Parts: sequence; C-alpha cells; structure tokens
Amino acid sequence: MRVSTLFTKTLKNAPSDEVAKNAQLLIRAGFVYKEMAGAYVYLPLGLRVLENIKQIVREEMNAIDSNELIMTSLQRKEVWEKTTRWSDDVVDVWFKTRLKDDTEVGLGWSHEEPIVEMMKNYVHSYRDLPVSLYQFQTKMRNELRAKSGIMRGREFVMKDMYSFHATKDDLDAYYERSIEAYKRIYDRLGIGDDTYVTFASGGAFTKFSHEFQTICEAGEDIIYLHRAKNIAINEEVIDEAIVELGITKDELEQVKTAEVGNIFNFGTQKTDEMDLYYTDKDGVKQSLYLGSYGVGVTRVMGVIAEKLSDDKGLVWPEAIAPYKVYLVSIGNVAEQADELYETLQKAGITVLYDDRNERPGAKFADAELMGIPYRVTMSERLLSESKLEFTVRNSGETVLLTLDELLDKIA
Amino acid sequence: MRVSTLFTKTLKNAPSDEVAKNAQLLIRAGFVYKEMAGAYVYLPLGLRVLENIKQIVREEMNAIDSNELIMTSLQRKEVWEKTTRWSDDVVDVWFKTRLKDDTEVGLGWSHEEPIVEMMKNYVHSYRDLPVSLYQFQTKMRNELRAKSGIMRGREFVMKDMYSFHATKDDLDAYYERSIEAYKRIYDRLGIGDDTYVTFASGGAFTKFSHEFQTICEAGEDIIYLHRAKNIAINEEVIDEAIVELGITKDELEQVKTAEVGNIFNFGTQKTDEMDLYYTDKDGVKQSLYLGSYGVGVTRVMGVIAEKLSDDKGLVWPEAIAPYKVYLVSIGNVAEQADELYETLQKAGITVLYDDRNERPGAKFADAELMGIPYRVTMSERLLSESKLEFTVRNSGETVLLTLDELLDKIA
Repeated sequence: MRVSTLFTKTLKNAPSDEVAKNAQLLIRAGFVYKEMAGAYVYLPLGLRVLENIKQIVREEMNAIDSNELIMTSLQRKEVWEKTTRWSDDVVDVWFKTRLKDDTEVGLGWSHEEPIVEMMKNYVHSYRDLPVSLYQFQTKMRNELRAKSGIMRGREFVMKDMYSFHATKDDLDAYYERSIEAYKRIYDRLGIGDDTYVTFASGGAFTKFSHEFQTICEAGEDIIYLHRAKNIAINEEVIDEAIVELGITKDELEQVKTAEVGNIFNFGTQKTDEMDLYYTDKDGVKQSLYLGSYGVGVTRVMGVIAEKLSDDKGLVWPEAIAPYKVYLVSIGNVAEQADELYETLQKAGITVLYDDRNERPGAKFADAELMGIPYRVTMSERLLSESKLEFTVRNSGETVLLTLDELLDKIA
Repeated sequence: MRVSTLFTKTLKNAPSDEVAKNAQLLIRAGFVYKEMAGAYVYLPLGLRVLENIKQIVREEMNAIDSNELIMTSLQRKEVWEKTTRWSDDVVDVWFKTRLKDDTEVGLGWSHEEPIVEMMKNYVHSYRDLPVSLYQFQTKMRNELRAKSGIMRGREFVMKDMYSFHATKDDLDAYYERSIEAYKRIYDRLGIGDDTYVTFASGGAFTKFSHEFQTICEAGEDIIYLHRAKNIAINEEVIDEAIVELGITKDELEQVKTAEVGNIFNFGTQKTDEMDLYYTDKDGVKQSLYLGSYGVGVTRVMGVIAEKLSDDKGLVWPEAIAPYKVYLVSIGNVAEQADELYETLQKAGITVLYDDRNERPGAKFADAELMGIPYRVTMSERLLSESKLEFTVRNSGETVLLTLDELLDKIA
C-alpha cells in the first residue's frame, strides 16, 4: 500500500472527547474512527490488525477441532426466557427492539442460549458428541459507561466458542485443551508473558471459572498475582481462592489487569435448563455438558495498543501489524524505491510505502505513530553506498544493510 | 473435512415453516439454520460459501482501488436527521433502540449518511480525492415480511461501497469502472449470463440508477428485457425508459428477477445535505460527488441456491462451493481413501470426505444435496482396476479415471 493512496492521515492530537489512550493512539494513527462512545469504525489499517488477530484465534480454534459458524445478532425472547436471562434485572446490558408486528427481540450480547437451543437440531445421540463450535461475532452490550476506547465497547468483536460433551471427563479434558490453545493465542499476540490464567467466579457446577488477565494499567480488573508460582486470582474470589490453594494474601502482589479471555464450565446446568439432552448407548436420556470460551478480539487489540505503545505511538507485534515494513523514500529515489517496494512484496513481505513528497522527519514520525515493526529507508546517500537503513520499531535499533542482508533478516 | 466430524446432518425434509426453496435446500443440506424469519445462522458449510463469495467481491473491489473498512451497526440519530432519513415515515425498515441514558440509536440498514459524516475528517482538499471505500456489513432491516429465505433478510450481509470525487466526470468514470467490476463478480459467481444491468429509479441527479437483476423465478422484481440488444428495464421506470431509449414495450420480454446489486449516482445531493465539501486548487470551496454501490452478498447466495439447484439439491459453481470434491469410500477401502484424501488436499484441492459407515446411496444423495461440484468414488472393485469414479454434479457426467487423470482434470 502506498501512503499517498491511504485516505486516512495521521493526526498530531487526539479528539478532545477521547479519554482512553488506546483509542487516542488508534485514532491519531488512522486505525479507527469513533462513531460514538463504545462504537468504533475500523479503518483500513485497523481492519488489517483486527483480521490478523482473528486469523491467529481462528487457527488455534481449528487446531482444537472447533468448527467456525456465524450466528445472528437478532435474538428471540422465548429462548432467553428459559434461563431467566431475558430479564433486564438479570442481564443489564441488553439492547432490545421490536419487529414490525411488535414482537420484542434482543441484540446478542452473548450466544450461549441460542446455540444450546440450536443444537437441539443437531445433537441427539452419544454419536453426535463431542462437538465444538465458534464464531467471530459483533456483540452488542448496552454499557452504562464506555470510556475505555476499544477495550470496552457497546459494539465489539468477540470470538465465542461452545463445546458439548457426553461426560464431565470429556468436558474437563477439552477445557484443558482450550486453556493451552488460549495460551498459544496470547503468546502469538505478543502478550503471553503478561497474561495469566486467573481464578474467577464460577457457577452452579464449578467453584471457579478461568479468566485470562493481562497486566495493563488501563484495565478494569484487579488480580492477586504470585509470579513465581504462576498463580493469579481475581479479587472477586480472593477469599475463597486462597483457602482453596492454601496460600496467604501476603504472598500475593496486587496488579491492574484487563480481561482478554474467559472460559467457563457450565456443567449440565444450562443444557438442563434449556432441555438439551442426548441418548446414550443404552438408549437412556442423559444430561449434556457445556463449556463456553471467549476471547475479546477488539479488546485484546486495545490492550496491545495500550501496553506495547510508547511516547512515539503504537508498537505492533509483527504477527498482527497491518504491514511488516514501512518503506521511506528520501529525495530523488522514486524509481529505486518503487523497485524495492516490488521486490519486498514479491518476497511475501507486506509493505506500507511512504511515497509522499514529505520531509523525512514527518515520514519517520508517521512510521513510529503507526507502529510498523520495521522501517526501511532509502536515500541518495544510502544508494551511493548500496545500503538501506533498517530500523526496528520496538528497540529503536538502526543498522545499515545491503538488500540481500535485509531480505535475509525479514523475509 | 471428514463428514463424520461434521456436526450437521442432512435432512430428508425441510422444516414445515420454511416456504422459500433456497432456505429449504440450505437447511436440509446443513448450510444454514433459521433463528427467526429473515435471520439465519451460517453453519460451517454455509459460512464457507459466504466467505468464498465475499472473497470474490473483495478482489474485484480491491481491483478498482477501493479500500476495505468496517463501520458500526449502531447509528446516531443526529447524523440521519440531516437528510430526513431518521424518520420512520421516510425509511420504514429502521430497527431502533436506546442507550442507558435514553439516547435513541438506530441499527444500520445502510451506511451512506454515516460514511459521508465520517469523511469530513478525511476529505478536505482536492488532493484527498478521489477515494473509494467498502465494507462487508451485517445490515439490519425491519422488513414487514421475510419469507424469501436468505434472499430477503432482517439481518443480512451486504457489500456496500462509496466513492467520493471532485468532479462529475471523475464520478462518471468510476461508476463505469464499477459496472465492469460488478459484471466480473457475477460472471465469477456463475450467474453472469442471466444477470442484467437494469435501468431503475434515479434521484435528484440522474434519471436512472442501475440495478443488477438476475433472472430468478423466486425474485421479487419484474424487469423488461431485450436479450439481443442487452437492454433491461425495471418495471418501475418502464414508461420513462422506453421513451429515453427509443424502443417500444412490444420489443421487450417480461421476466421475474432478483436484484443482486445496485449502483447509484448521488451527484452532490447527499454531500451538500450533509455539508461535506472540499477546497479546490484555487482555495475555493466545492461540492463533492458521491457514488454508492451495493452487492447483496447473502441474497446472491440465495439466488444461486434457487437458480442452479435441481431436484437432487444444491449445485454450487466451483468458485464458491464449500468444497471442490466430495470423496466417497465404499466398502473396505478406508486406508486407500484416507491416502487419497491426503493426496488431494496436498494438491490444493478442498475435499469433503465421506468416511461414514453408510450405504453408498446415502452418501451419493448427500453429495448431491450439498451440491459439491465433483464426486470421487473409491470402492474395492474400482481399486482392483486402479480407477476412480468421477462424477460432475451439474451435468451428471460420470467417467472412470486413474489418479493421474483425476489430478490433471481438477488440480
């Protein structure tokens, strides 16, 4: 992509009504546009990051034999009434509206109930189990406050997965597999070292659920952490958890975190409530085990924008950066820079090519604000030495390389 | 994908409440699930078709220099009030709801107004033009009746593109490019021969807009067609159009069609209404030209399901089929069939492998109902002759081939 054809422009200052650092940076760099509090447009650069994150999540969900589908945003009242969760007193984030015939409908803030209802069509016998399904869905939640940029949206993208099992053991085994898959996801997203599997409130079937909490000053959660023992506990369950784990609160460090994922063992509670059963080998009707597994896709993008950025702007990990290389041409080198642009792309490298007639400082500042992992600079002086300047965004390290050395390094 | 791991099962009969042929077939074959009238879940097989269609549309939009983004479903009242289109009397398909603070918001049934509003941030000067943007968006329309399966949804996927220009000539030229891009899309989707660029109602700036209408018995439109002269006119403008074109109604054939795309020249009407201007080379404020271009992505999937299907089931064109090959194993050939499954996949061919312990007739019927373009059958008898049976879904043609001949044919 040539910067000259990018319709977004970087901004010196963020809009005054935007208080969250992640959104300030993403707006300034041209990644998102704020439609209203908690609802953001993903501009071309932002959409590329979002799709890269989704693809990593997708690969890891496929790797644990889950099947992708896409459910509906429109929700039927009668489905949610089965678990009492239609009520605004029970769930306080519903957006509701009405069909022309005055039927009340909701907009999906979660899809547990509708997927259990749907599976009545597909799960009848033990032979139909286990089955795991996931989607990337735009969830709608009527949040009272939405001041955390893309970290808490009224409209946001979530990956939600649901698994159905004949036995508790089978669910437990899959639950463990999903924890491992989630760890791989956060590792690949570049925040694995600061993301902890965290004890959180459970339900009727399990004392605890598990959240994935990433250390982040802008997060809305507090966890208690034991780094050496790799133990993390959400403050909401701290008292029960320390008893259970046989530790004391003194051993733990209190840190601010953002929840980037959560997994929940429903046991047979929800399927029983909604009358989803299966028939076992002996023809006997049996309760069915359900697990539910979420990743806040847009939230994790916001957390990465918050955490990995510096005073110059965003810093994207290579795996999710919109482009791998920011190519800067300085002076009268258009022909050679055009050629390098082609060469890099042919080598499979995504390139944002700053071909504008701007001063070098402005181009460097944009490269930094946008957080592109590698900057490659070409100038007349460098060309005369058959060198390119190569700068790493997150370390600032700068070296001079030949084209071959550059390709060896990044292709 | 192994059929044994597919959680959907084919059904002999469609649900009694489903009246549209496209949805009946798609439900029976396990491609979609009906959440409510006009709102369908896309199951794994259906999602693959949908993504294949989107990818074709995406490639053609990128080829005419448009940039992908994704806007929000939540809509601000004040933005739509600028063109009077917030009013339910003007637009009768709004779904509306309220934020916690009682602010009224809408759900996007179109995105013309919000994109014009947004572009005030990015278009200031003639140097910022032209610019073209598109998205794949889940549109929400509160349709009074939704009985056409996925051909008319309350919640459906649309590709909408918007282009902004400094001059009428520049818009006109881009409008023509977009017509050519649309023709390529429908050709690649396998319905090009039956899809006509059709005169339809215009607006303040142009006498006519252009629809892409596909001949389809289940369609909701009537067009007047001159096949030899390649002229098509929506009945809503037949009287004006025949005068304009200097033809008589007698020359024309009346056919039922489904609208699969539409393009609209707004001139400067909408941008003027919404106060989006640019500054020309002389520093003078000028009106800005807007074009709007839609493809009904889920609708076109429904039209293809309606049009190309036969009494055995769906018939997908190869370019959008969920899998290219349906591999059937008969009898005691699991080891060899597993190997063939691997071989085909390594050759880059997508395969749905029916590894179930079912009778051949049931496997053949499922292959046909699902509409997979090529069926490859392996049995003990065929193996003894070193042959595979190769059947083409749309013609029914069956031949015996060696593995090399098969790969030559489809790889």
